[in-house]
Amino acid sequence: MTNKKGVLVIVSGPAGTGKGTVIGRVGELRGDLRYSVSATTRAPRPGETDGVNYYFKTREEFETMIGAGAFLEYAEYVGNLYGTPAGPVDESLSAGLNVILEIEVQGAAQVMARRPDAVSVFLAPPSLAELESRLRGRGTEDDATIRRRLDTARGELALAKGYQYIIVNDDVETAARELDAVITAGRCRSMYYPEGENLL
Amino acid sequence: MTNKKGVLVIVSGPAGTGKGTVIGRVGELRGDLRYSVSATTRAPRPGETDGVNYYFKTREEFETMIGAGAFLEYAEYVGNLYGTPAGPVDESLSAGLNVILEIEVQGAAQVMARRPDAVSVFLAPPSLAELESRLRGRGTEDDATIRRRLDTARGELALAKGYQYIIVNDDVETAARELDAVITAGRCRSMYYPEGENLL
Repeated sequence: MTNKKGVLVIVSGPAGTGKGTVIGRVGELRGDLRYSVSATTRAPRPGETDGVNYYFKTREEFETMIGAGAFLEYAEYVGNLYGTPAGPVDESLSAGLNVILEIEVQGAAQVMARRPDAVSVFLAPPSLAELESRLRGRGTEDDATIRRRLDTARGELALAKGYQYIIVNDDVETAARELDAVITAGRCRSMYYPEGENLL
Repeated sequence: MTNKKGVLVIVSGPAGTGKGTVIGRVGELRGDLRYSVSATTRAPRPGETDGVNYYFKTREEFETMIGAGAFLEYAEYVGNLYGTPAGPVDESLSAGLNVILEIEVQGAAQVMARRPDAVSVFLAPPSLAELESRLRGRGTEDDATIRRRLDTARGELALAKGYQYIIVNDDVETAARELDAVITAGRCRSMYYPEGENLL
């Protein structure tokens, strides 16, 4: 009997590394993936749907959830609260689905501390020069912003060893296949099995 | 830059679980595998080639190797010494090849203790009833031997949680793909990368 519980996969890494692209490709490779949806107190933007882009909450609702320990991680940015509600994640895991949490490094550290069963993956650019080239290629940020992002990326790279896996996104297809393998392997971890001869 | 060092993969589990078949299939799935060759003091049998089936050693040579710490594990069975020489394994790993060590549980425990970088996989039968049916299907062992093997299997199953991964060999193709994923994931482990921002 194969284990049926899904794996919680944390994917973090510097902005511009291509997390969204790699994760999207893995979703095409396997049908058992779900992407975690965050909760936020910020107002919905035109076209955003509650429960799809975000779970939209009032500050009071959000703070009640914090008090109830309902978040895998949360943080405040420019006056708004953002967090990952544990409930939908655990429902998917129990249903045998793997849940991908694309998250910045501070949030990743919170989830790792709370969920030792999670698999953690740091997605790295092939080099800082390549990261700079990708950020400039977007054409959406000015020079000062790009330099600030590169400084942040240096600090994030120093945290990579705290993740179980490091995947270098040199080629999207290779990186996606590696992440796919990490998920498949994650489902085979012995932690999912009972002790003793009653394994089977 | 992707890590180029190979992974040492320990594969153990009860006799009759299909280790050889699964490992053989993984060798077809990926070109970067090598199978570890054991050393032994027993005499070569007709058709056996030194360095292919075994490294054939005199007892004196073998004991000198033990004294030099040249084995990843070794043991004595019915008057002959058997062991896994570390040298050829490490040469393959340095060349970027993954090395599969198909080994019984006592040897596996020795390798795990000496090589914390190894990935350990316990290959389990889908059930003891199925294992019994496979052992009887071989038609090579009498009833008493089969019952002894099943008793041994029960004891081995109790050790499964000491491995990093448990793969249930219900279907050879599925088990081989899971082992393949475990190897690919093993190459992405953060332990292979240096500390700090000089990751890249």
